[in-house]
Amino acid sequence: MRPFNKVAIVGIGLIGGSMALAIKKKRLADEVVGVSRHKKTLLLAKRRGAIDKGSQNLNIIKDADLVILAAPVDTILNQARLISKIIKPDCIVSDVGSTKQEIVAKLEKIFPYYVGSHPLAGSEKRGIINASPSMFKGSLCILTPTKYTKVKTLEKIKRFWNEIGAKVFFLPPHAHDKVLSYLSHLPHIVAFSLIGSIPKRYLRFAPSSLKDTTRIALSDSELWSDIFLSNQKNMLGSIELFHKNLSNIKFAIQKKDRKLLSAILKKAKAKRETLG
Amino acid sequence: MRPFNKVAIVGIGLIGGSMALAIKKKRLADEVVGVSRHKKTLLLAKRRGAIDKGSQNLNIIKDADLVILAAPVDTILNQARLISKIIKPDCIVSDVGSTKQEIVAKLEKIFPYYVGSHPLAGSEKRGIINASPSMFKGSLCILTPTKYTKVKTLEKIKRFWNEIGAKVFFLPPHAHDKVLSYLSHLPHIVAFSLIGSIPKRYLRFAPSSLKDTTRIALSDSELWSDIFLSNQKNMLGSIELFHKNLSNIKFAIQKKDRKLLSAILKKAKAKRETLG
Repeated sequence: MRPFNKVAIVGIGLIGGSMALAIKKKRLADEVVGVSRHKKTLLLAKRRGAIDKGSQNLNIIKDADLVILAAPVDTILNQARLISKIIKPDCIVSDVGSTKQEIVAKLEKIFPYYVGSHPLAGSEKRGIINASPSMFKGSLCILTPTKYTKVKTLEKIKRFWNEIGAKVFFLPPHAHDKVLSYLSHLPHIVAFSLIGSIPKRYLRFAPSSLKDTTRIALSDSELWSDIFLSNQKNMLGSIELFHKNLSNIKFAIQKKDRKLLSAILKKAKAKRETLG
Repeated sequence: MRPFNKVAIVGIGLIGGSMALAIKKKRLADEVVGVSRHKKTLLLAKRRGAIDKGSQNLNIIKDADLVILAAPVDTILNQARLISKIIKPDCIVSDVGSTKQEIVAKLEKIFPYYVGSHPLAGSEKRGIINASPSMFKGSLCILTPTKYTKVKTLEKIKRFWNEIGAKVFFLPPHAHDKVLSYLSHLPHIVAFSLIGSIPKRYLRFAPSSLKDTTRIALSDSELWSDIFLSNQKNMLGSIELFHKNLSNIKFAIQKKDRKLLSAILKKAKAKRETLG
């Protein structure tokens, strides 16, 4: 018997589409349905074998025993009430938003069997066209249970992510947002700032070091505006700490203090080495 | 007839070793000799077919018609006088240092047939072990001629870089250092600062975005201390501009100004898109 009869993915983009493809590949559900605002996305998702049926209308998710909310955070929050009226009372719900405090607080009031997910996967690319069934293979996924989360919901969602290849960690929503403000959101802010600082006329000489360091500045600007603002307090903290580190290097350069400079760089390098 | 009878590479590391391999592969010289402080490096360079002969003694470069200085900048500056006494009077000399103002000013007083080179190639890896004959294929190389540079020297060095796959641009030394302070040195400072800001206990969750953005913080801390300090004035300028860009993003987050934030990110993304 497959773990789910019917899984519904609301938002068939890079992440939602990859989840649908992985579910089909691993045969985790008898049926996968998808919801998108765009007909073209639904057609492509069907052609790629990600979904069995697709619709622009939310009613298609009726009878699902698992609903994954993979649309932009605003859309999720706007549709949550409506979705809660369509689904079965015991339907399990999760989302894949990049910040969790705000969304978990709202969704766990609406859905009785909900836990937040954040797969640390994906890239600066977007859309079902770039989706892959192996997107989550070897990746991490953070689940954000609270005191309201049912053990069974948590276990089922954990097993689901494991099945499609992700290693699962649990963090409370506020801890998740703090950790991610450093690990993911700060690097994005830094990359956007860095490419913003390079005079345009120099760009034709750009070496691979600049390209690598700023690759994630190719990410969607609307999506990341939402992420930064929904994690405002933590972002101000992580930017502050980054600024302190930058100032230390600047100070050493200013003072021509080679010993201090080299010590700072060496320590940073050693830290980076632990990431492989 | 090959372009050179004898080429000598002083410093058989990642760049010097790759140049030697490329020269052999393209058959640009009858003989390639290498100088290193380390016997092991010389043995490995010979085993890899990068050099015909190697020595820890500079006298091996006698009779060369091209000498490439590929050791650390300090070493180059210390050895230059001695080298000038060993080589033929008409020997062409170039170096591959990452900053040019200081080194060009000194070397062009010592060597009559000199022009500075800076191949925008390489990686955070080091040593002959990571060298490759195709290192410069499709890369850029900046030459830094001055009013003292002989046209024939410039032409010969330009042709040499072209032969091993690099596209060559000319920039005066001071312009080179300014451009590179943005394109290469600033990204390195940012990467070192970024990894320095991440709390150690979070690192086990590090996503690929953090890894990519900080990969160049794996670079050698001594080498980069030298580069930053030898380009001090420009570095302070580029850090300043970066800080301004970062502050703009921070301001938009602080004020929860979604329109401003998204406009800044969109502009940065558009700039990054021009790099491919």
